[in-house]
Amino acid sequence: MSKLTIALDIMGGDHGPPVILSAAVKAIQNYPDVNFNLCGDEAVISPILSRLTPSARDRVEITHCEQVVEMGEAPTSALRHKKRSSMRRVIELVEQKQADACVSAGNTGALLTLSLYLLKTLSGIDRPALVGMMPTASHHKVVLLDLGANVNCTPDILFQYGVMGSVLAQQLADIERPRVALLNVGEEDIKGNAQVKSADQLFKDAPGINYIGYVEGDDIFTDHADVVVTDGFTGNVALKSSEGLAKLVINEVKRHSQRNFYSRLMAKIAFPLLKSIYNSVNPDQYNGASLIGLRGIVIKSHGNASKDAFYYAIVQAITEARMQVPDKIKTKIETVLLEQL
Amino acid sequence: MSKLTIALDIMGGDHGPPVILSAAVKAIQNYPDVNFNLCGDEAVISPILSRLTPSARDRVEITHCEQVVEMGEAPTSALRHKKRSSMRRVIELVEQKQADACVSAGNTGALLTLSLYLLKTLSGIDRPALVGMMPTASHHKVVLLDLGANVNCTPDILFQYGVMGSVLAQQLADIERPRVALLNVGEEDIKGNAQVKSADQLFKDAPGINYIGYVEGDDIFTDHADVVVTDGFTGNVALKSSEGLAKLVINEVKRHSQRNFYSRLMAKIAFPLLKSIYNSVNPDQYNGASLIGLRGIVIKSHGNASKDAFYYAIVQAITEARMQVPDKIKTKIETVLLEQL
Repeated sequence: MSKLTIALDIMGGDHGPPVILSAAVKAIQNYPDVNFNLCGDEAVISPILSRLTPSARDRVEITHCEQVVEMGEAPTSALRHKKRSSMRRVIELVEQKQADACVSAGNTGALLTLSLYLLKTLSGIDRPALVGMMPTASHHKVVLLDLGANVNCTPDILFQYGVMGSVLAQQLADIERPRVALLNVGEEDIKGNAQVKSADQLFKDAPGINYIGYVEGDDIFTDHADVVVTDGFTGNVALKSSEGLAKLVINEVKRHSQRNFYSRLMAKIAFPLLKSIYNSVNPDQYNGASLIGLRGIVIKSHGNASKDAFYYAIVQAITEARMQVPDKIKTKIETVLLEQL
Repeated sequence: MSKLTIALDIMGGDHGPPVILSAAVKAIQNYPDVNFNLCGDEAVISPILSRLTPSARDRVEITHCEQVVEMGEAPTSALRHKKRSSMRRVIELVEQKQADACVSAGNTGALLTLSLYLLKTLSGIDRPALVGMMPTASHHKVVLLDLGANVNCTPDILFQYGVMGSVLAQQLADIERPRVALLNVGEEDIKGNAQVKSADQLFKDAPGINYIGYVEGDDIFTDHADVVVTDGFTGNVALKSSEGLAKLVINEVKRHSQRNFYSRLMAKIAFPLLKSIYNSVNPDQYNGASLIGLRGIVIKSHGNASKDAFYYAIVQAITEARMQVPDKIKTKIETVLLEQL
């Protein structure tokens, strides 16, 4: 097997190149069998080479890019006016088979538009989806999609998301027959809108998918399903609102443990306990949403990712590249579509 | 001011009458200026009278009801075949001005259908909404609606929800000019679906509402807004998925603190700290979703409410009755609609 190459957009993200570069150095050191192509301002990137051993340096290429896609920039502007940007370059490297996957913490809308324009969707897939891995009670992860790529989803698109999510759970969580569920609201009677009801029928008619029916929002974090499918509006809200609650908990821990001498002491004694709770809900470790359904691997990191969070996104890219996720999705969607003929 | 009367559906909920009755006893004892009408099977209810002082007993009426609306029952079936049910009776008491508010932990769909049929919406309101109060970092609560009454919301309905939520924040959280926001997805460019965009314009055109624009899912738990408006599908998912994460945290605390002798000791020492964190995210204390927009006060408790959770729902009913919430909504909606002429 030839060495993998991962292309990194060094210029994206809220915290700028230093955080991204620190994460890149960590990945370069930890993955001696992977090559890296760092795209962005050469003057900013090249100093980090001194932090690497000579053999590590040999696995790093720098691609100088004059432009940066801004965080608030309209996707159409990025498409038209930023042809020499680091974000576009990493996707082009994937398109030209010079990289096996790319990672960016930049503007989601622009990344989506550029990826769709340059890489195109796999045949049988109408729209790409943003996918995340969520924590659960039993510590195996749940595939949640769409996290915001597509706010208006037809039943067909929801069905395709289920097929793609199923492949991801197979490849990344090593589950033989992933249980696929549709996200819906609680009560029997007020159950779902027209889209969800039609998608439900599509899944029921697809023997190749292990469809288990509807789940509710709280079931994302239990072990009811391995893949939870919803439209990009609802998925984004589910992701963000659970992250919001996680942050609230973390802040409460801080607040309560600084209240007085006794509580500071308690917090010190219970620090390992509090730390492991924090780790189990900290959204950082689930950073790295995959943009799937494309003819190439694109990983979207949180814009405000820390060094560790961006590192997780790079690891995600390496894993998907090793698993050849787009090929697996292509095969699965062909099988499922053939069954329906 | 004459004494308030609160009607309680004793038969609803997953845990059955004993839990509801225990909560009722607590409320009867804690609110000596409130009368209670307990609706359900008299044989089940009357034994609790012995747990009350004679003066408390004088404030309690029992209304025997032969029927029970089942948790999984279709709303249409409840409407047609359960005319002598405890759920219908409590709403009738509100309709007939014999009670100032009612509380049920029964089947949400049936409660919604019966309330709408018996009480009707206020003029200017197309559909009622389920409203909850969510915790935030600064410990004042945020009004979130709709939690699932209405999965398909037109922009007009979203606007009406904003007006109603604004009144609730004024009356229940004592905020003079509540900041009203629309829930939306993250990025500028992929921002929102057609409904949200049209509703945004309606709010911008209404000077009587302190509209602050869009917020994202994690902002529900920060202090960006006092009222967060969304459709019943998304709102239900936001509520349930944040509850799901809260439960995950609570389970992690339990798991980590029982791992070995040392962690059990740590957990014991830090118990007050863990307890107060638990309390700040425990969904029980936010129990009691109001069904607003109707000509009367209906409070929906979680089906699986504990004694304390159902007690909070009763307190919510008393508070809204004292504040005369439906009258305040009526006045506000008239003012806002007049402004638009």
